[in-house]
Amino acid sequence: MPGNSFGHLYRITSFGESHGKAVGGIIDGCPAGLSIDFDFIDSELKRRNPVFTGTTPRKEPDRVEWLSGLLGNTAMGTPIAFLVQNELQLPEAYDPLVDVYRPSHADFSYERKYGIRDYRGGGRASGRETVVRVVAGAVAKLILKQSGIRIDGFIAQVGSLQLMQPPMDAPLNRNTDSGLPLTDPSREAEVIDLISKAAETGDTLGGAVICRVAEVPAGLGEPVFDKLQADLAKAMLSIGTAKAFEYGLGFRAAGMKGSEHNDKMSVDHGKVAFVTNHDGGIQGGISNGEEIYFRVGFKPVPSIHQPQKMVSSNMETSEVTIHGRHDTCHIPRLVVIVEAMTALVVADHLLRNRAARLQ
Amino acid sequence: MPGNSFGHLYRITSFGESHGKAVGGIIDGCPAGLSIDFDFIDSELKRRNPVFTGTTPRKEPDRVEWLSGLLGNTAMGTPIAFLVQNELQLPEAYDPLVDVYRPSHADFSYERKYGIRDYRGGGRASGRETVVRVVAGAVAKLILKQSGIRIDGFIAQVGSLQLMQPPMDAPLNRNTDSGLPLTDPSREAEVIDLISKAAETGDTLGGAVICRVAEVPAGLGEPVFDKLQADLAKAMLSIGTAKAFEYGLGFRAAGMKGSEHNDKMSVDHGKVAFVTNHDGGIQGGISNGEEIYFRVGFKPVPSIHQPQKMVSSNMETSEVTIHGRHDTCHIPRLVVIVEAMTALVVADHLLRNRAARLQ
Amino acid sequence: MPGNSFGHLYRITSFGESHGKAVGGIIDGCPAGLSIDFDFIDSELKRRNPVFTGTTPRKEPDRVEWLSGLLGNTAMGTPIAFLVQNELQLPEAYDPLVDVYRPSHADFSYERKYGIRDYRGGGRASGRETVVRVVAGAVAKLILKQSGIRIDGFIAQVGSLQLMQPPMDAPLNRNTDSGLPLTDPSREAEVIDLISKAAETGDTLGGAVICRVAEVPAGLGEPVFDKLQADLAKAMLSIGTAKAFEYGLGFRAAGMKGSEHNDKMSVDHGKVAFVTNHDGGIQGGISNGEEIYFRVGFKPVPSIHQPQKMVSSNMETSEVTIHGRHDTCHIPRLVVIVEAMTALVVADHLLRNRAARLQ
Amino acid sequence: MPGNSFGHLYRITSFGESHGKAVGGIIDGCPAGLSIDFDFIDSELKRRNPVFTGTTPRKEPDRVEWLSGLLGNTAMGTPIAFLVQNELQLPEAYDPLVDVYRPSHADFSYERKYGIRDYRGGGRASGRETVVRVVAGAVAKLILKQSGIRIDGFIAQVGSLQLMQPPMDAPLNRNTDSGLPLTDPSREAEVIDLISKAAETGDTLGGAVICRVAEVPAGLGEPVFDKLQADLAKAMLSIGTAKAFEYGLGFRAAGMKGSEHNDKMSVDHGKVAFVTNHDGGIQGGISNGEEIYFRVGFKPVPSIHQPQKMVSSNMETSEVTIHGRHDTCHIPRLVVIVEAMTALVVADHLLRNRAARLQ
Repeated sequence: MPGNSFGHLYRITSFGESHGKAVGGIIDGCPAGLSIDFDFIDSELKRRNPVFTGTTPRKEPDRVEWLSGLLGNTAMGTPIAFLVQNELQLPEAYDPLVDVYRPSHADFSYERKYGIRDYRGGGRASGRETVVRVVAGAVAKLILKQSGIRIDGFIAQVGSLQLMQPPMDAPLNRNTDSGLPLTDPSREAEVIDLISKAAETGDTLGGAVICRVAEVPAGLGEPVFDKLQADLAKAMLSIGTAKAFEYGLGFRAAGMKGSEHNDKMSVDHGKVAFVTNHDGGIQGGISNGEEIYFRVGFKPVPSIHQPQKMVSSNMETSEVTIHGRHDTCHIPRLVVIVEAMTALVVADHLLRNRAARLQ
Repeated sequence: MPGNSFGHLYRITSFGESHGKAVGGIIDGCPAGLSIDFDFIDSELKRRNPVFTGTTPRKEPDRVEWLSGLLGNTAMGTPIAFLVQNELQLPEAYDPLVDVYRPSHADFSYERKYGIRDYRGGGRASGRETVVRVVAGAVAKLILKQSGIRIDGFIAQVGSLQLMQPPMDAPLNRNTDSGLPLTDPSREAEVIDLISKAAETGDTLGGAVICRVAEVPAGLGEPVFDKLQADLAKAMLSIGTAKAFEYGLGFRAAGMKGSEHNDKMSVDHGKVAFVTNHDGGIQGGISNGEEIYFRVGFKPVPSIHQPQKMVSSNMETSEVTIHGRHDTCHIPRLVVIVEAMTALVVADHLLRNRAARLQ
Repeated sequence: MPGNSFGHLYRITSFGESHGKAVGGIIDGCPAGLSIDFDFIDSELKRRNPVFTGTTPRKEPDRVEWLSGLLGNTAMGTPIAFLVQNELQLPEAYDPLVDVYRPSHADFSYERKYGIRDYRGGGRASGRETVVRVVAGAVAKLILKQSGIRIDGFIAQVGSLQLMQPPMDAPLNRNTDSGLPLTDPSREAEVIDLISKAAETGDTLGGAVICRVAEVPAGLGEPVFDKLQADLAKAMLSIGTAKAFEYGLGFRAAGMKGSEHNDKMSVDHGKVAFVTNHDGGIQGGISNGEEIYFRVGFKPVPSIHQPQKMVSSNMETSEVTIHGRHDTCHIPRLVVIVEAMTALVVADHLLRNRAARLQ
Repeated sequence: MPGNSFGHLYRITSFGESHGKAVGGIIDGCPAGLSIDFDFIDSELKRRNPVFTGTTPRKEPDRVEWLSGLLGNTAMGTPIAFLVQNELQLPEAYDPLVDVYRPSHADFSYERKYGIRDYRGGGRASGRETVVRVVAGAVAKLILKQSGIRIDGFIAQVGSLQLMQPPMDAPLNRNTDSGLPLTDPSREAEVIDLISKAAETGDTLGGAVICRVAEVPAGLGEPVFDKLQADLAKAMLSIGTAKAFEYGLGFRAAGMKGSEHNDKMSVDHGKVAFVTNHDGGIQGGISNGEEIYFRVGFKPVPSIHQPQKMVSSNMETSEVTIHGRHDTCHIPRLVVIVEAMTALVVADHLLRNRAARLQ
């Protein structure tokens, strides 16, 4: 199986290189009758834009063209195809890179795999492909909304700056006025300052994102291999630069005793009530009705604006500086992408769960 | 899609409950001509046994019955079915648990999903199903061996005791004489002491496993969704009690600058040589030929031998102590399971990669 | 993808060679809560037995061992594994065939594909594997029964003897007292006579099966590639010796004019009523609520009891007579297999259709 | 699984309604390094055009826009997306049909399934979607050409006029100068006359197509469910208006004896030589190196230009005449579509077969 599809019953197939004509995809399995809120989808795509700029990263207008599957704005059950033109192509910026392998990029591994690669801005390996994830994820969010499910992502870390940690004990409302998806807006200046300083040196910063999924019905997830957390982990690690995933208490749970970690249960108004939620809302691979939360760690973008020693395909070395438009810190933009991938997983499992029982 | 299959071209479909008749599976896609080394597979299964026991955990003889797909010991390209009888069934130990939800187990979520559940030792959610993973993984290792690929797992953490950390700078040879897969055998006593103390209190311990994959050819992994690390993350999080996954520098990379993290490349004897391997052998979702390494964090087994408050399906609460055979610390046993899941992923991608180019 | 699985949400994975230890399979996706009627499944397997014997074909007791997925006789939503031992193995009968390619068998093509083959009775290519189809199909029938769907197959042709033709205008009730699934029991003697005469000469006969599916709800089938008839066609042509499939008027429709063939609609008691059903209950790939009917043509079993010139793997020719137990005419046994494959397709689409709309 | 994808390793995902903006698709799994011959693809699309016109059927310019996956004209291993604009939309022609179910169309079944349907020319159920099959099939043919495999389709029947029959004993060279893919060009006038007469009465004609696949290597096909003929049958029955499929001698084999039907083998110059090819080049579901041939039967297009009684969604009946552009006989156009679907199946199995053995 080639790897450009994700999901089983709600399924996105993606295409497009960074500096090709367009990126886009086909959503197959959107339930008929769904109303597509185009404004919402545009607003999600805007959340993917760079919110401020130490350097001058690429900012596409990103207009979605809807090609099929809709009668007016209603899904017909047929495939929904969409595309977004790549209007701001600057392939010539990559001419010096035709023949060299940028460090910690996909240049070398793609060439070894395929015997050919798109040198123009990383081609398929560029973050540009996440446009497709965001659009398909936004449609998935509309499906989830019908079931009352909410997905909220936050910046958890920028560079060495820790901003929030699991578990999610307190209600977290994203300050939607803020340009940055932070739980504590008072720290925005601090974050911006850190990024600006990195930008001045031509360097880049990594970080982490925390995502919360509220009002998930119990029962989602398919044991034993397609556990809900397994599909979430795959979804997150499929995002470029992602290096780590943990849900619930994650690595912290590794150092705990069973008696500490076990989520006690109680009865409240005739219903099961969980006293703690260390398991992050998933037990045995199946959602238990509690909030799902997880954290994703990302390495810094490898495109730094400093000279680096590079190897070329004819095995020569030279010092090259990458130009083009790149983020100093891509973490703020990743929040909507993490949410989108989460929505793809949850929507798919929501549909899959319809087949779990006799009706 | 129900969730009991894993892999695309090398594919295992698994069955079996903890206290049912048997666990087993069907390997579909084993390349014809492979010689099955039955002794090796038995030895892998033995690595899954509890190596020592504070309490008296279940220890099955675990004889593999091979049902199909082999002519003598040679794979014919047809499905290889196998099963392992559940000989040491003690379902009566679970009678007090027929109607209660054990904390942090799958009892509650399974019942919500399916409307029915196997109360006998967790049924399908039990660690017993990992027998199937180990057998299928062992066959996958035999395939990988043909390509020179080696997989080695190690105990990285037991409870709060840290035993090794990425990155993998030094050659790590597992001391195969040791009962425990540690890189530093001198610490075995310390580990055993920690587990014994936990066992005395009826408590359990979590921990972490590090896995290294050596001599992987460049080119494995299918962008953009089936990146090699994405499939590894899914494989690991599909293991019961797994809570976290990171590859390369993982969460540590999140706090680094691009100029620090980028893996410099050089030329050595006319070939690309990586100066560092922070990326853990995968770039753009595709293996680059360097060693792949990752860490998996596991929560403690939730079956503690202490009284716990439990809720029953008729919404009453009572204090119950779980009996039956359970591990105080399952981390030593998890090493071979982590390796097996790794082998499934790498073997599948090895076969998938055969379709990447024109021949 | 290896080819030993069928279906998406109701999915059977099959294993087993003719003269190996056992044949069996794993049903993944059986909806939780289904009661398994073991007697019904046994009775379906009995329908697969040779009903009378000119020669002495193999007749296994065929006891199903259920290995997992059931609590008592209730499906738990976990994989249902089963196996049937191959008790009447006579591999020595195949010793003269170790090295020769039997005409119109799979010997030559398997060896070219895999470089190895099971010479014992055709191995995986033997009709023995249909045991698995019948068991999985019988479970599927139990699911369909919950929705009122009925599947009835009939012998349509034996050798040159035509017994029934589409379209299905009259109510067809299978005479369940008869040993043969004929619509007109008065023709049983004629059929038996024809087969007996072929048996006397050591020859074999082909034929055709007609299958009717009644009370199918409108809406099953997934355009454009997974049209209901496309999945039925695949299911039927996956049966060994099947050579042809047609639904509705089939090839006869090719010679008709649109004005003749179009299925007129009318209104009866406020509901759509079809005046004719030339389309065989499927339009645009989706069931329309009318009866589905189709015909499957099978070549004669290639194992004749006459001397045939055969080529061996070292490219020598010799005259060999196949011994062992083989059917003179396998059409009577194929009826339940055709029904089983139909049940697999319809059950799968019934579950898939649950995801078609917003709920 | 929604049904708009076809294939496993060479995989097309399709989108588009007849009178929406565009039809198109994503080819995932095209082997890297393939040169795309754009002229060839255009010529294949032209073969899909109506070759002559009793009425005035729709004739789109059908320019393919390539959106991704190519560097110049070389496949990079990344998804190849393409679209064809629907330039000649005449949705107003369908206004009288907004609310009625056209006989033997998909109107009624789509509405029952999805609760909504595209009334404009059949929407997704229109033959317009076959543009995507032809483009993806043409790329597949380029892959097959590298292995020397050739696919040739012919008109076998138009209305009641039989033009050719299996088996394929004589070499069949399509007269490429002819507008119609006939083996005997002298019959072209007869065919055109028959279609013209049907057009005069506003009626439509069905027919059949025969397809031959030459130089297929032995070994393609995956037992037991994904037999090569099973996937071909599915591919053919997924084409709109297809009603029947047979390969080799097909239904004719049903009336034969084993001693007649069995394909004798011989040795010629040290290689296996088949004396006959009744099995149509496939044995045990796997190609044996002989020519593959099969026949597909199609019903007449249901859009006749005669008044028909139709039922509306509010259960009223009225007499309506369908206008718009429709074929009197679509068989000539179906030849390239049958070939395209064949190419998809064979290319997919060619890649799948790479995983069959140890390397």
